[in-house]
Amino acid sequence: MLSEQAKQAIKIAKSIKQQQSDELKPETAVFLRKDADEHNGVSIPDNIKLTEYDDSVKGELYELQHSRYDTVLMFIHGGAYATGSVKSRRNLCFSLMKVMNYDGFSVDYRQWPEARHPAAQEDVIAAYKFLKQKYTHVFVFGESAGATLALTMTLQLKAEQEELPEKIAVFSPVITQINIMASEFLIQERDPMLLGAGDPVPYFDDPYAKDPLVSPIYGDFAGFPPLMINCGSEEVKYDDSKVLNYLCQKAGVDVTWDVWQDLFHVFVLFDMPETDQALNKISKFLK
Amino acid sequence: MLSEQAKQAIKIAKSIKQQQSDELKPETAVFLRKDADEHNGVSIPDNIKLTEYDDSVKGELYELQHSRYDTVLMFIHGGAYATGSVKSRRNLCFSLMKVMNYDGFSVDYRQWPEARHPAAQEDVIAAYKFLKQKYTHVFVFGESAGATLALTMTLQLKAEQEELPEKIAVFSPVITQINIMASEFLIQERDPMLLGAGDPVPYFDDPYAKDPLVSPIYGDFAGFPPLMINCGSEEVKYDDSKVLNYLCQKAGVDVTWDVWQDLFHVFVLFDMPETDQALNKISKFLK
Repeated sequence: MLSEQAKQAIKIAKSIKQQQSDELKPETAVFLRKDADEHNGVSIPDNIKLTEYDDSVKGELYELQHSRYDTVLMFIHGGAYATGSVKSRRNLCFSLMKVMNYDGFSVDYRQWPEARHPAAQEDVIAAYKFLKQKYTHVFVFGESAGATLALTMTLQLKAEQEELPEKIAVFSPVITQINIMASEFLIQERDPMLLGAGDPVPYFDDPYAKDPLVSPIYGDFAGFPPLMINCGSEEVKYDDSKVLNYLCQKAGVDVTWDVWQDLFHVFVLFDMPETDQALNKISKFLK
Repeated sequence: MLSEQAKQAIKIAKSIKQQQSDELKPETAVFLRKDADEHNGVSIPDNIKLTEYDDSVKGELYELQHSRYDTVLMFIHGGAYATGSVKSRRNLCFSLMKVMNYDGFSVDYRQWPEARHPAAQEDVIAAYKFLKQKYTHVFVFGESAGATLALTMTLQLKAEQEELPEKIAVFSPVITQINIMASEFLIQERDPMLLGAGDPVPYFDDPYAKDPLVSPIYGDFAGFPPLMINCGSEEVKYDDSKVLNYLCQKAGVDVTWDVWQDLFHVFVLFDMPETDQALNKISKFLK
């Protein structure tokens, strides 16, 4: 049974879905980011020290008082490489940090329309290398397009024989830029948030490229660190999780796949008991 | 339990799979057609009169002695728009014709490398219009790419407000040219015949086009005639059938989906008890 808060969240998600259209305009992307910051951005609590980075390394470093100083959570937000923002994900990032007692770094990677692929990839790689110098242990969390970036980042690090993150947890990952998996159609009506089966995001010049750094479905996951996949049963991206789990199992990765029944795409952005439950489980995994 | 013949067929399918490569060369396509004709082509039995058409209408007309003269089965073979042939499918076409006592017409549509999209589409449309003049009732059967053509033909006829076929039976349909559905990966090892998750077929200049005449997954099936979908449980194209069934149900089409357990892509090309069973069921539907 869903909590009352979850039922309420589904109603909000549905109203968001109704406002969506298939085509994302540049000015809409920029507006949605600002809007998310205004409505969902939280200020920095007293026990967290914020340092902003805006050079080759981009993002917000959150240093937690009495944290496990050698360990950091690298946080990669989602938003279709266009509409997401660091500030609007602060709450989620802080929640994870607090349960684990890690510092956090939320990557402010470049997005469309200001930038195009591989800008975001470059930015997460730069952030990871910066964090590897500063901390002994880097754990990664990514949601939606941020989950994709967590995967493409690790695929690139693997190819370059760099040290990989210790563990990765992804929420509602997208593993192909072509929105044509069966779940895009079968769950299209049930998904309270995403329209499904739409055009590729505008961030990629060639979204159809058979390139693992565009669509990690083409990646070789052998040698990946332990991976935890989370998704809702009611999301059009369900098959992305299903196939990612399969590819990782086949490649011998220590992979876990948690399907959150009756819930939707990145529901952990909503404040509700199911979110606490999911974040607790993710935190245990990222220890 | 599979029959001994089916187990044997799976072995043959596996040996075919091993010989496949991801990239189809023009000369290979032409060779495979000739090879199929030599090994699987059958001669015309005494009770069938053959007329060959090779003008704007292309194909073989099979007139059955004592047939139900007002009814024809339009047969559309598969083969990735490249490697299939009319002669190699005669046996399957005759089997269906005999159970139903219909005449048959097997469309010899143009394929790659000699032609590209929309040549095959034009040829099936021309054949259908020819048959509509000659017969009162036109039933359609298509397998693999031939199933796709049965669907794209009907979508075009619908758009042009032409009279539609009475019923359509498809076997192992392909509804998108992008081979990225979950089953392309999840069933990749189990499928004894198809490699799965490969590049699009070379026949389409733009296989990624959001065009229902390229990928019927983008089609509107409202108003479609009764449709029977068949597929094997062990084929990488499984999700194509799943989504086609869903889209048709949603559009209010009288649709049936038969999954043949433990069997593979277009297994009805093999002579075995399971084929008789499937053809009997299809024949009952096409009455």
